[in-house]
Amino acid sequence: MNKLYVVGIGPGAAEDMTLRARAALDDASVIVGYTTYANLIRPLFPGKEYIVTGMRRETERCRAAVECAKAGRTAAIVSSGDAGVYGMAGLALEMAAGTGVEVEIVPGVTAALSGAARLGAPIGHDFAAISLSDLLTPWEKIEKRLTLAAEADFCLVLYNPASRRRTDALKRACEIVMRHASPDTVCGAVRNAGREGEETLVMTLRELASYTADMCTTVFIGNSQTKTVGSGIVTPRGYKDV
Amino acid sequence: MNKLYVVGIGPGAAEDMTLRARAALDDASVIVGYTTYANLIRPLFPGKEYIVTGMRRETERCRAAVECAKAGRTAAIVSSGDAGVYGMAGLALEMAAGTGVEVEIVPGVTAALSGAARLGAPIGHDFAAISLSDLLTPWEKIEKRLTLAAEADFCLVLYNPASRRRTDALKRACEIVMRHASPDTVCGAVRNAGREGEETLVMTLRELASYTADMCTTVFIGNSQTKTVGSGIVTPRGYKDV
Repeated sequence: MNKLYVVGIGPGAAEDMTLRARAALDDASVIVGYTTYANLIRPLFPGKEYIVTGMRRETERCRAAVECAKAGRTAAIVSSGDAGVYGMAGLALEMAAGTGVEVEIVPGVTAALSGAARLGAPIGHDFAAISLSDLLTPWEKIEKRLTLAAEADFCLVLYNPASRRRTDALKRACEIVMRHASPDTVCGAVRNAGREGEETLVMTLRELASYTADMCTTVFIGNSQTKTVGSGIVTPRGYKDV
Repeated sequence: MNKLYVVGIGPGAAEDMTLRARAALDDASVIVGYTTYANLIRPLFPGKEYIVTGMRRETERCRAAVECAKAGRTAAIVSSGDAGVYGMAGLALEMAAGTGVEVEIVPGVTAALSGAARLGAPIGHDFAAISLSDLLTPWEKIEKRLTLAAEADFCLVLYNPASRRRTDALKRACEIVMRHASPDTVCGAVRNAGREGEETLVMTLRELASYTADMCTTVFIGNSQTKTVGSGIVTPRGYKDV
């Protein structure tokens, strides 16, 4: 049986994994992943072989996992959050096509959901998820999506708001959104959701423009109806809502 | 301790719940939910009191759950998928504000993720989630979001594509999207994701316009880069991807 699981492990804590994800990792004999995520799960599944590589080695990781499965082992490749949202699922399916390897995608709690839960309910209505990383996407495309999504009054979830190299992407994104949305729009940021050092912050869009995000931050920009409730954020489920 | 958990139980099967969701429901003495979802979890948590109401009784359910918590019981209110995406989290937070009830949101695998995993990786890049229900949102707003999201080349996930009353919403949505996207855009639909009677279908946007969705269907419309891989759908993670 040539089997490859592509597993979303959720934000990081063992409790935020689904039972199906745990069962898949139990079933695998070899687990492939980015160093940080592999280290998160290693204590839970000690008797496995791990193939671990650094950042931006997605293609290499996928190839290694497919090769293991082709050789008859049950392999798992892990993504943080969900494997299908800016994750490894697509690459794994493409690489496994025609090899006889059966791929099973196991969904997980993506940062939009884990971060939202910490802030309240910032994406309780229609929302758009946009990655600010211009590594694989031209910035013009990102800018166009931000513009049109703001014009459409979507709640926004920004993935990859910053990296060591990209320090001004969030500021630029906020300035674009402010062309259509009020600078007082209710926003929030979550760092290390569901992990050690978790931090949440509620602020206005104007304040968000000068907030320093890092690689472990997920950013939320409300729609025109988003409000603060207690210490959190709520976007009502509709415009006719009571 | 006045505690209210708002729990996303995922698509339905016990395996797709997170461990945190199971622990929250274990901890609760009373579980409040819509009939269908309460019935999905009842066998897993037999020793609880259940308060179950029919469709569109969200406000009533939330009030009942908050009242139980105010009275000193540990209560849980369940949503299918994730509690924060078209779920009960916002309403619960608003109703609990100022009552002394502590609300904990427990995220779950929303239909965008569970459905995507069954189809492959249709939302591997920026995506927008739009509900086609005009119960709480004017149709003009939905139409504007569809138009701008299509113009921005987002992958789209359509929640509530149909109900008994609304039978032409999906057709109208597809016609709007086709003003900006090719009728050959790769699309998919998933019925009863992760439940009995699960069905997946890959088709073009033109075909989707005459597809009959129901209340248990989640619809995916690819972006300009989405392609079929084997029997599934993949949206590459970027435009510079290899």
